[in-house]
Order: sequence, then C-alpha cells, then structure tokens
Amino acid sequence: MRLVIVGSVAVDDVETPQGRRENSFGGSAVYASVAASKFTDVGIVGVVGDDYPESVCEILKSNRIDLAGLERVPGKTFRWKGVYNDLNRAETLDTQLNVFAEFSPKLPENYLNPEILFLGNIHPQLQLDVISKVGKAGLIACDTMNFWIDSTPDLLREVIKKVDILFVNEDEIKQFTGKDNIYDAGDAILALGPKYVIIKRGEYGAIAYSKTLLFYSPVYPVRQVFDPTGAGDSFAGGFLGFLAKHNKIDDDFIKNAMFFGTATASVNIESFSFDRLLETKFEEVVARVSKLYSLMALKKMW
Amino acid sequence: MRLVIVGSVAVDDVETPQGRRENSFGGSAVYASVAASKFTDVGIVGVVGDDYPESVCEILKSNRIDLAGLERVPGKTFRWKGVYNDLNRAETLDTQLNVFAEFSPKLPENYLNPEILFLGNIHPQLQLDVISKVGKAGLIACDTMNFWIDSTPDLLREVIKKVDILFVNEDEIKQFTGKDNIYDAGDAILALGPKYVIIKRGEYGAIAYSKTLLFYSPVYPVRQVFDPTGAGDSFAGGFLGFLAKHNKIDDDFIKNAMFFGTATASVNIESFSFDRLLETKFEEVVARVSKLYSLMALKKMW
Repeated sequence: MRLVIVGSVAVDDVETPQGRRENSFGGSAVYASVAASKFTDVGIVGVVGDDYPESVCEILKSNRIDLAGLERVPGKTFRWKGVYNDLNRAETLDTQLNVFAEFSPKLPENYLNPEILFLGNIHPQLQLDVISKVGKAGLIACDTMNFWIDSTPDLLREVIKKVDILFVNEDEIKQFTGKDNIYDAGDAILALGPKYVIIKRGEYGAIAYSKTLLFYSPVYPVRQVFDPTGAGDSFAGGFLGFLAKHNKIDDDFIKNAMFFGTATASVNIESFSFDRLLETKFEEVVARVSKLYSLMALKKMW
Repeated sequence: MRLVIVGSVAVDDVETPQGRRENSFGGSAVYASVAASKFTDVGIVGVVGDDYPESVCEILKSNRIDLAGLERVPGKTFRWKGVYNDLNRAETLDTQLNVFAEFSPKLPENYLNPEILFLGNIHPQLQLDVISKVGKAGLIACDTMNFWIDSTPDLLREVIKKVDILFVNEDEIKQFTGKDNIYDAGDAILALGPKYVIIKRGEYGAIAYSKTLLFYSPVYPVRQVFDPTGAGDSFAGGFLGFLAKHNKIDDDFIKNAMFFGTATASVNIESFSFDRLLETKFEEVVARVSKLYSLMALKKMW
C-alpha cells in the first residue's frame, strides 16, 4: 500500500453556523483518506462498531480506499458531538470512545512497508504501536491535538522523535514547545527529529518549516464554510496524497503539497462530513491549486 | 508634495514582553512618514505641543520629511500609554489628547495637490476636513480603528466613501460591515466606493482585495518583536511610499506595495519607537522584499 492512514473512524453530531447534522461520518482516518484518495491508493487502519453502516464502507471502497485494516467489532462506533460558534474552534459537547477504547491497530501484511505512513490524531501510544509494527516506511507523518499535549506529553514527544513530518496547530505547537515565537517553536520540533513541521493556522493558512524551508500557504478563499470538521485531516490527506503520488520529497515537493493540502481542505469544509470532497474530481482539486498559484503570482517591480 | 500624511504625532509610554520605553516618539503620522521616507518626499500634517523636542523634528527633517504642516502650539503633545501582554493586541492604559483635542489640520500651499494623501488613524471628522481642503489628490488612502467604528460610524462611512484605499484590521472590517466572512466584508467596503481594501491581520500578514484582486501577503519572519506600536502605520507608509515613488496604481503595483509595506513594518517592530526603521536603508527594505519573494516562490509540479 502506498499510503497507510491510521486514525479514528467516527460518527459525529455537528452544529455549525450553517446548520447541523447528526450521524455525520467522520474521524481523522476517514477525512484524511478521502482527501488522499484523489491522488493515490490508500489503506485505513482503524476500528468501527457493528452499528457502522456497511453502505459507508462500500462508498469508501469504491473510492480507492482499502479497508482491510479497518476492524469491525461488537459495540458502538466512536462518537463525537461538537458545536462551532466560532468557525475556528470546535467546542466538544460529548465524546464516547466506545469500541475505540480497546482499539489495538492491526496492520495487514501489505500495509507493512508503505511509502508513507500517516498517524492521524489518536492516542500517542497507538501511534507508537503502529510505528513499531510497520517494518519500514518511506516517510512517517503524524498529527496530534491539545488533548494529548495536556495528558500525555512524554509519549507524544516519543512519537515526534520518530516521525519525518509533524502536522500541528499553531496554538498547540506553542503549547507543546513553550515557545511563543512560531519559528522558535518550529526549531524546537526540528531539534527532536522531524525534517518538516507543518503549522496549521486555520483560516490564516499554514506554514511549512524546516532547516532549509519557510513557506506560507494562504487558505483557498471559501465564501461559506459549512463545517470545519476534518479540515486539518483533509489537509494532511491531500498533502501526503500528493507526496505519495510523486514519491519524492524535497522542499519543492513540500511547497506543492502545501497547496494541494490547502485545496482538499477547502473542498472538505464546504459541506458536512466528506460529501463535497468525495464527489470532487482530481481536476477540480488541481483547478483550486492553480487558482491559489495565480493569486500568489507577483510581477517583480524592484 | 508627493505624499502628504495626516495623523497623530505622539509621545508614548510602551511596555512589551521585551521591555518598556517611556517617551517613545510615535503617532500614526510619524510612523507612516518614516516608513514612506524610504521611497519619497513626505509632508506631515499634525500638531505637537511646546514640549515636543526640536531634536526629534530635526531628525525627521533630515530624512526627507517636511514639517511645514506640523503645527506647534502651547500645551502638551498627545500622549498614549499602553501595554502589550499579547503582541497582537495593545491594551490602552491612558490616553491624553492634550493639544490634539483642538487640532484643526492646516495644509501648506504645496500640500494641496499631492499624488497621494494618507489619512492616518485620527477622528473621521478631521479626515473629512482634510479631504475637503485638498484641492485634488491623485489617490486618497485612509486608516482607522475600532474606537471610531464604535463612536462615529456614520462619519467614518463618509470618509470611506471618499477614499480609494482603505487600510483596516480584520476584526475592525468585520465589526464595521457586520460580515463574518472576510471576502463579504471586503465586498461591503468596495460597495461604498474604495477601489482597494487592505485588510491587516497582524502576525498573519495582510490581504489586498478589490473587484479584480485577491492577494495574500505573509509577514516577514521576525524572531523577536520588540514593539508592535506603529506596525500598521509603517505598513501603510511603506505601501504608499512605494506607490508614490512609481506614481502608478494597478493590481500589480498594489501586490508589490503589499510586500514593501510588509518589509517596512517588519523593520519597525524590531525596536521601540522608529529607531530601527529610521536607520534602515532603502536597500535593506528591498532585501527583505526579495527574501519574502523567494520564500513565496513555488516551482509548479502539476
């Protein structure tokens, strides 16, 4: 498998300024893999309960997403309930781990040497387990969130030491590193081991940072954000899908990946769940990347 | 005079995470004109009290800044006292209008047909007075702040109707227009008359917006912000100084102006008052613009 994605598979109840949806199919692994499937074959590692609709599995499978690593066990699927009063920040109303509480990732044989392994936002111990199970990956990337920074910072540090790319929100990297300046915070992460840190800034875009790279990507202009859930995951999915497709990683590829991640995330937030992202063709993603590129084009006058 | 700048001339007491300075020479007109003086001759319209040091006037005059429109009257100069606990937001501890309370802008003869008139952040009624006094300006730009949006929104609307370029903070444009989406807010401003609206986003850069343009400028990376006071004014000064130097305005020039404004603002925040900006040569500003350009350069891989 070119790209293996480990993370949550969830059923969400979401309320945003644009409306609400109950039983919205989401989770970090699902959002990331739907985005990545625009570029390459993807395999999900995760768990669902016996309430998870087979019809959703069929939709994913018909979109280049392999579910051999998606375990189905008795019980209820992981559920999250949240509200966005401010589109930049979700307020969690309820979390039910359900079958996720006992989750132990199982990797099919053909997942053991992926070109890219993405550890979506789950417990750092599970991320470490997967790293130890994978024989060899061309590249390992991970995402995380404030919850793990607060509760298991030492485990999270062990994960970060082992990955090549860290995706992290701006607030969270400052919190984790204790550095207020974003470049100082980036340096602190690079000192732990990653080659690249991708700092996500919500509606302000994202920064790619390494010892040799500083690149700002703006957001793709969206008039009406329907549901920000999964924005970060679909960003990472598009970003890593682009890299997996080209199977080469350097500063130029990372810059391009930033634009592709931005484009897939911009599509994802235009609907609840992954509705829009699923129906979006690769050509539409490219069109958004081209528009972003043309917006940033500057004719030097100095 | 190519560029006439109307605004406050102030003596500030400023405290930031990096330290504090009493009697820090500032004010919107001063910050903007020091930035603009890197590009062109500038004339200030403003008022100071008899306590304002002649030595500061001499420094400004020796840097292409004409003070024929700077009135000196009995009394104390406008004073502002503020603290930055968060570098993105000043908390005002004290404001003393002093001689500014009775200020009525007086424009020397040779200021009446400027290529560019910049109305710095002062009472909208004073901005309107200046517009009515100027015979004809090639371009009129203005800045404002939340205080005037709260207290004199109708007057401010009259100003905005008469200007070509509005500089405004992101929070403030949302507040003034009642639109949460930044592009909707921009449209609401364009509907009033301005050709361009420049939305300032602090450490997230700035957006130039018009019916034909959407351009995001990131910030220039600064490791240690000493004092954010005057960042917006020095941005506007560099931006308009660039336009005045070239005396041509279209989308391409506006994009370049965004980078030059970003560069002058980035220098300004590296010291208290305008210390760093004053000593910075034009070539150093260009070097920052070139670096910004190289950071944004992207080799298309799609």
